[in-house]
Amino acid sequence: MKYGYFDDKNKEYVIERPDTPYPWINYLGSEEFFGLISNTAGGYSFYKDASKRRLTRYRYNNVPTDAGGRYYYIYENGSYFSPGWAPQKSELDSYECRHGMGYTVIKSEKNDLKIEMKFFVPQGDNTELHQIKIKNLSQKKRKLKLFSFLEFCLYDAEDDMTNFQRNFNTGEVEVDGSTIYHKTEYRERRNHYTFFTVNQKISGFDTDRESFLGLYNSFAEPQVLEAGKSNDSIAHGWSPIASHFLEVELEAGEEKELIFQLGYIENKDEEKWESPGVINKDKAEKLMEKYNSTAKVEKAFDQLNQHWEKLLSSFSLEHSDPKLERMVNTWNQYQNMVTYNLARSASYFESGISRGIGFRDSNQDLLGSAHLIPERVKQRIKDLAVTQFEDGSAFHQYQPLTKKGNDKIGSGFNDDPLWLIFAVAAYIKETGDYSILEAEVPFNSDKKATIFDHLEASFMHVVNNLGPHDLPLIGHADWNDCLNLSAFSEKPGESFQTVSNKDDSSAESVMIAGMFLTAGPDFVHLAEKVGENGLAKKARTELEKMKKAVNKAGRDEEWFLRAYDYYGDKVGAKGNQYAEIFIEPQGFCIMGGLGLEDGFAEKTLNSVNQRLNSEHGLMILDPTIKEYQINLGEVSSYPPGYKENGAIFCHNNPWVMIAETIIGNGDRAFEYYSKIAPAYREKISDLHRTEPYVYSQMIAGQDAASFGEAKNSWLTGTAAWNFVAITQWILGIRPEFEGLKIDPCIPEDWNGFKVQRKFRGSKFEIEVKNPEHVSKGVKEIFVEGEKIEGQILKDFDKGPVKVEVIMG
Amino acid sequence: MKYGYFDDKNKEYVIERPDTPYPWINYLGSEEFFGLISNTAGGYSFYKDASKRRLTRYRYNNVPTDAGGRYYYIYENGSYFSPGWAPQKSELDSYECRHGMGYTVIKSEKNDLKIEMKFFVPQGDNTELHQIKIKNLSQKKRKLKLFSFLEFCLYDAEDDMTNFQRNFNTGEVEVDGSTIYHKTEYRERRNHYTFFTVNQKISGFDTDRESFLGLYNSFAEPQVLEAGKSNDSIAHGWSPIASHFLEVELEAGEEKELIFQLGYIENKDEEKWESPGVINKDKAEKLMEKYNSTAKVEKAFDQLNQHWEKLLSSFSLEHSDPKLERMVNTWNQYQNMVTYNLARSASYFESGISRGIGFRDSNQDLLGSAHLIPERVKQRIKDLAVTQFEDGSAFHQYQPLTKKGNDKIGSGFNDDPLWLIFAVAAYIKETGDYSILEAEVPFNSDKKATIFDHLEASFMHVVNNLGPHDLPLIGHADWNDCLNLSAFSEKPGESFQTVSNKDDSSAESVMIAGMFLTAGPDFVHLAEKVGENGLAKKARTELEKMKKAVNKAGRDEEWFLRAYDYYGDKVGAKGNQYAEIFIEPQGFCIMGGLGLEDGFAEKTLNSVNQRLNSEHGLMILDPTIKEYQINLGEVSSYPPGYKENGAIFCHNNPWVMIAETIIGNGDRAFEYYSKIAPAYREKISDLHRTEPYVYSQMIAGQDAASFGEAKNSWLTGTAAWNFVAITQWILGIRPEFEGLKIDPCIPEDWNGFKVQRKFRGSKFEIEVKNPEHVSKGVKEIFVEGEKIEGQILKDFDKGPVKVEVIMG
Repeated sequence: MKYGYFDDKNKEYVIERPDTPYPWINYLGSEEFFGLISNTAGGYSFYKDASKRRLTRYRYNNVPTDAGGRYYYIYENGSYFSPGWAPQKSELDSYECRHGMGYTVIKSEKNDLKIEMKFFVPQGDNTELHQIKIKNLSQKKRKLKLFSFLEFCLYDAEDDMTNFQRNFNTGEVEVDGSTIYHKTEYRERRNHYTFFTVNQKISGFDTDRESFLGLYNSFAEPQVLEAGKSNDSIAHGWSPIASHFLEVELEAGEEKELIFQLGYIENKDEEKWESPGVINKDKAEKLMEKYNSTAKVEKAFDQLNQHWEKLLSSFSLEHSDPKLERMVNTWNQYQNMVTYNLARSASYFESGISRGIGFRDSNQDLLGSAHLIPERVKQRIKDLAVTQFEDGSAFHQYQPLTKKGNDKIGSGFNDDPLWLIFAVAAYIKETGDYSILEAEVPFNSDKKATIFDHLEASFMHVVNNLGPHDLPLIGHADWNDCLNLSAFSEKPGESFQTVSNKDDSSAESVMIAGMFLTAGPDFVHLAEKVGENGLAKKARTELEKMKKAVNKAGRDEEWFLRAYDYYGDKVGAKGNQYAEIFIEPQGFCIMGGLGLEDGFAEKTLNSVNQRLNSEHGLMILDPTIKEYQINLGEVSSYPPGYKENGAIFCHNNPWVMIAETIIGNGDRAFEYYSKIAPAYREKISDLHRTEPYVYSQMIAGQDAASFGEAKNSWLTGTAAWNFVAITQWILGIRPEFEGLKIDPCIPEDWNGFKVQRKFRGSKFEIEVKNPEHVSKGVKEIFVEGEKIEGQILKDFDKGPVKVEVIMG
Repeated sequence: MKYGYFDDKNKEYVIERPDTPYPWINYLGSEEFFGLISNTAGGYSFYKDASKRRLTRYRYNNVPTDAGGRYYYIYENGSYFSPGWAPQKSELDSYECRHGMGYTVIKSEKNDLKIEMKFFVPQGDNTELHQIKIKNLSQKKRKLKLFSFLEFCLYDAEDDMTNFQRNFNTGEVEVDGSTIYHKTEYRERRNHYTFFTVNQKISGFDTDRESFLGLYNSFAEPQVLEAGKSNDSIAHGWSPIASHFLEVELEAGEEKELIFQLGYIENKDEEKWESPGVINKDKAEKLMEKYNSTAKVEKAFDQLNQHWEKLLSSFSLEHSDPKLERMVNTWNQYQNMVTYNLARSASYFESGISRGIGFRDSNQDLLGSAHLIPERVKQRIKDLAVTQFEDGSAFHQYQPLTKKGNDKIGSGFNDDPLWLIFAVAAYIKETGDYSILEAEVPFNSDKKATIFDHLEASFMHVVNNLGPHDLPLIGHADWNDCLNLSAFSEKPGESFQTVSNKDDSSAESVMIAGMFLTAGPDFVHLAEKVGENGLAKKARTELEKMKKAVNKAGRDEEWFLRAYDYYGDKVGAKGNQYAEIFIEPQGFCIMGGLGLEDGFAEKTLNSVNQRLNSEHGLMILDPTIKEYQINLGEVSSYPPGYKENGAIFCHNNPWVMIAETIIGNGDRAFEYYSKIAPAYREKISDLHRTEPYVYSQMIAGQDAASFGEAKNSWLTGTAAWNFVAITQWILGIRPEFEGLKIDPCIPEDWNGFKVQRKFRGSKFEIEVKNPEHVSKGVKEIFVEGEKIEGQILKDFDKGPVKVEVIMG
């Protein structure tokens, strides 16, 4: 069952009823100011860091779900309704929510009124605009009252929901004209405040939650709405809010428009005050002035659209399958940008508390955004590298506001270092900009280093941390955070990863070996490029040794082993009680070139197909683990079919898709792709539950009661890897160091496809034809009519370059 | 305006309308299982530790306030209502909530039904009983449906509200007959589960929140109630709940009764499972059986009442003022027990997250509970002592589940050590049990020590940490956590107390000096008692030196200084821009015997009266601080009139009351007492807002917009100190080492009063007569008709001992 449809032309997902199976959200902002907004305008806003600088309050896992957000109420003749459905669940005559690229529009009709609410963050400013249009559809003059509402967070999200003995005493506001200023703690150490304004004269306001709602009323029944007028309350402690009260007169057929603005301002210490106790409003007033008219706001909205138009024109597919087009052209790239921006820090499943930006997560996110925002990717690589230690290990997470590593979780996740090589290689392959290797970025110790030094440290971290089978030590965990072979946790509340009782562990990860062999050749190339030929040679030797080690000790009979545990026993081996096969090493070892000579790759991928494939995608392991296994850790803490214990992880499915393309199996690669790609799952939205336009972290596996139900949407490297799999390996338009390689591996029944690809300043118009209906193999490539040697486009002319590719 | 009344006979506060100015709560349980319950059955339950072992889920600072709790719904003919008002805010024909000693009863009538819900935790068991009576008041037979509801917390309260990517996947339950077992994470490291049962056959159940409520429904509109039947849902992840569905047939006039039970069970590792995946229910079934009938439950309730009857018979006042009687006889002592049990860890203002038990808090709580539960006080003293370091400093907080000190906050609050002397002295004065001094309790370092060694370390910690004026160094802070003279915080989110940039501070506290002089003579006495005469002599010398130091450097012209700051400047001195006078040293220096010879005590107390007195009590400082003062810290972070910046702290008012009794001013002592004692403030409940039967931490001061509004009720040493002030110093029935001293200091217009006091195995029936209408002064004391020398009752006969005291 569907709850809406894709409007491909406008790059919008259109939701046709408010009671979606879970709140379906969008993100506003792509620089420093962000908002999460659901299809009924629930959610919250923050500046840079959802944990430390949260601007509006939101209650996760609330009853009802998604209560709290940017609410408007329309009052007329003693009754009122919510034009966005929530919070009142108003019965609307019509409802539509359009989630677009960086904006959300909610339209509704009720009582012969048509309301449109557009929410977006303009480029370049720390402010969220709410453009509200109200049209009188009736033949008579109407006198309406409009009330706005949002609740302020006291900035530190965690403290805000735990420390009431202090926080119920600190709240402070100022009201000046139509603007409500939230200035809690500005009196002391904060040099920032928030404001909520509207570009018209108001008839009243409220800034104290209880005065607005009443102590025992829900958001659906504010006492101010029952009374039909504001209390003009000034918050002193408790919970500061902002609510405007406006009187709106509409002639028959008339439409009026209001611009609300939620802005964030920082002042220098010496410029904080206008007079004792009165905040300096200069910057706020300038910001308000910038967006105080429809014309100004529409111009800003046009600029936002142009920004996205330009971004998404970097890669554009023409294909007979509209589902594939909308994934590749719009939603997968959009999600890549969101994961780049948020790096798993805040969604409707990630509460934005304390987690920060993951080293592993963010490096992978870059794989999907290097073609969109190369300059910002370069900066992020530097930010990440700063959190790396001299031995190559890295802080597992860092806080975006401070850019400091998170001491609580620390380092010791032994896959982390290698992801930096993936990210830097992806950046250079996209841009050709080798200069990043010379960029100076110190280690966390402050020791001077270049980015290449960081890559060397990453590579050598594996070489210097090998176990008894010459395979990489796993440390706290590799990509699968829940496979904990070096810590045996016995007490609830302990970290499964970091409890320190098996620090002598020499548990090994075959997956890291596969990653090493995948990233290794790129490292060798880069070493040669910076003239480190000795190092390159040494690296080649290490890669050969690793290949031998995996072939000797990393294979089971029909697939790659997952690991060796604390006791030296095999993990992911036939005959084990549970979890005989894991997905992760199968994809990565084949990406690393293993098993290609002797047919083991095919055997492995057949095993994956037989053991892990399901109607909703490839499960992470089989069979699921029925009891807690202290030597395996968190993976066995989940009920069978959920999370790492047998769910379908959309993140690692693409590794298998890529492996399938490597052995030339385009049908299977695309089968796996389409099973998890959200647009293909739109028709089962009632089962899938999360948004049909973006990937979720996982889908419950076949042992789960809710097989097929997705959770944790939006934020993981999932989007990036699926984009890599579909564009670089299935469609086969793949940046390499030498240029843009064309090497599709597609279902045999495809006739072909067209791609427009911007690459290193050029724009290629590529048409792939498949007259012989092969899966893989490029017979000829013509550039502007001229046949070229090989499969790599190296001719980087500026103008549109026509490329014809004949498969066969 | 009042919202209820005191039922003194039944020791209950009776609330007559559900929409109190703030949720008015009670505590269930006094051993290991605790519940917080509001007057509409909101709240939650936990085992030992509100942070780490929370059993049911509660959302603080929710909208509506206090949504979530132990809810029952009664359904008949397509409509339904909440007999406890919440969550539906049902219009009831009658409503009454009785908060009693360890139990709460909510009674209501609607639709010719009378419902009574009694909630309590029986002595000795980890279970919460809900006894539900439903009576048909009509003349016809009725077919009702009853639905129960509560929501489980996944045990770790903080994780439960932040870590959704995991927690939405772990939820597991079992349903067996009428019992719903919550077993999340029992599959792995937890060896405990929770159950919710009813002593009758059920017609259905729900264990999945969404199935019961519907995704977008509030607690007030469960979809199951809309449908009139359960979904028999089994939770897999998301949010496990427990809801029973019972069909209840009632003849005309018939009453039926149901016993619901929320139990907590721990199993040994080897006894966790009955069969693979099925939990061992033996202990649960035994517990259910123990309370599965009305007779059994009523017996348990009688035992609970007897327990409280016995406890409260330790001190009992007969007085012409019923407000005073109900405070002294019931509610102040009851609050003492609650603060002993909870030690500030969980209230409707303390979220129960991570704080744990405060060293300073709990030691003070003991002052009010030593006469009630001496054995448990002794044990708590030992638990606290374990968290002390060899140099006398102590962890500022510890976690009750683990009894380990809280590393995050650490030590360095230089008043902490002295509170242990207060607590031990109070215990010995109450019991005469000097043997506690020899009890072996190691320091936090594991170094062997006796309790006396701990006291020596406490005393010497002051001696060894003196500043330039020979006054005690303040460290992070003394009792006033917000006066931070040794840390200059510039960044939001930093701890005002522990940010480490003025560690070289030699800021001094006059208050600690006063504490030292107050506790010092007791320490000298104890040193002599254990034969440490050399130490006793040295201690006397140190006390003399301290007295001189305060008299030289600790006085301002008209009151005692508060401190010296980082720069050596005076804090709390006339002529300062803000905060010329602080309350804390005024009470404590006089308690420590200062200013008694030269009239400075009187002058000081007159200054307090002039500068700090208000219609709602004594404010903490004057004038309030208008801007952030980095050298004063958190105190200046609050808006004027709130919290430490000028509110009325009910905790330190009694120090001044005691000081007034020391100089013989009974009128003023009692004036201060009655201004903040909650029973006296009952009539202004709409202004006061928090419960009229227990103290709150503070009342907004006169510079606050909400002057007179109380916050943070129930949990502070406030209750203990007020009890000490009224019983030991105003009524003057004061335990001393030598015996029970009788030394009243009362308003002159009192004719006298009677007190029954259990003391060291004896029961004294004391009648105090004030024929000459003096404030202070005991002319004669007759014990069983015989006049005695002095004012100390030493004759510890078992039987009731009649004592007549003639003031004059």
